[in-house]
Amino acid sequence: MDNRLTRQTEFIIEIDKLKTVLRRAYLTDASRRENSAEHSWHVAIMALILAEYCQTDIDVSHVIKMLLIHDIVEIDAGDIGIYDKVASLDKAEREKLGANRIFNLLPQDQSQALLNMWAELEDGTTPEAKFARALDRLIPLLHNYCTQGKRWKEDGITYEQVLAVNQIIREGSQELWEFTLSVINECVAEGYLPKN
Amino acid sequence: MDNRLTRQTEFIIEIDKLKTVLRRAYLTDASRRENSAEHSWHVAIMALILAEYCQTDIDVSHVIKMLLIHDIVEIDAGDIGIYDKVASLDKAEREKLGANRIFNLLPQDQSQALLNMWAELEDGTTPEAKFARALDRLIPLLHNYCTQGKRWKEDGITYEQVLAVNQIIREGSQELWEFTLSVINECVAEGYLPKN
Repeated sequence: MDNRLTRQTEFIIEIDKLKTVLRRAYLTDASRRENSAEHSWHVAIMALILAEYCQTDIDVSHVIKMLLIHDIVEIDAGDIGIYDKVASLDKAEREKLGANRIFNLLPQDQSQALLNMWAELEDGTTPEAKFARALDRLIPLLHNYCTQGKRWKEDGITYEQVLAVNQIIREGSQELWEFTLSVINECVAEGYLPKN
Repeated sequence: MDNRLTRQTEFIIEIDKLKTVLRRAYLTDASRRENSAEHSWHVAIMALILAEYCQTDIDVSHVIKMLLIHDIVEIDAGDIGIYDKVASLDKAEREKLGANRIFNLLPQDQSQALLNMWAELEDGTTPEAKFARALDRLIPLLHNYCTQGKRWKEDGITYEQVLAVNQIIREGSQELWEFTLSVINECVAEGYLPKN
């Protein structure tokens, strides 16, 4: 087997570990916590379905690719909840180390391409990255909505925190931001989310 | 919320169920069986990494999209193992019913687009579909390799069966077929797979 295909196969086998990285979110049936691999699949499909709500003309396939690879760094860095301010302190550094180790399993041209995609999403400045980040925030909200705020209740999260953390959705899509507000308000009305 | 976004959201929530559909394959660390959502993520990334081995010039983004949505029908039809000839008898019919129900949750233009993509992969005649099907066969082989043939041993699968079932890889990529043969032969040599 040639060396290039060997490296690619090693990468493909290595990323299987993302299936064992647990996120804070519960599945919509509340049966168990979600892992980062299945989450990445879910949010990539969201991009395919919701692309029309992006204000600017974007390359949807590029959004999908970024979302597919965006959490691979968590194999080394772990998943850090968006409300966990302590663990977030060295998040960027840990994830950067993870990105370098894991993407560099690939041949150099591909590792560079994936590192660039990963960095683009982290930077969040291109229209594609802004839209991808909006979707990545929107989906945990839907999981909380479907589980009557199970994760929020366990972590003592309030309306004010949810509103603050999800502001980023506005940068990706005005329509999805309005939708986000309607979901948050319904969660408050239903008693899933306490408002101070 | 407008009706279009309502339908899209219902679809996005519905497909969360794919995370609870178990496949025959074990994770590469053998800790548990894999589900169809995380499998879809894995095989979509394989398309991104291995596209260069397709003989013809293909639209990689289209392969990725087909692979992302290809197993959604299993929410209704269940996952059917590639060696299970009895369950495979009415597989096509059950999956077609599943595709119609689930994709039709979406607005009509999108449901048609996804039904077309799903049917293209099932038909397996376009270069993109052939390549996608090759990857979908290759990955369980790697899972068996990594787990010393755990699933094969449990199901009493032989070298001859593995060779027959994986012939389809040849249609997607000659290089990946040669790689497949080398992996199968190594599995036999290591005692992971009995040869009659």
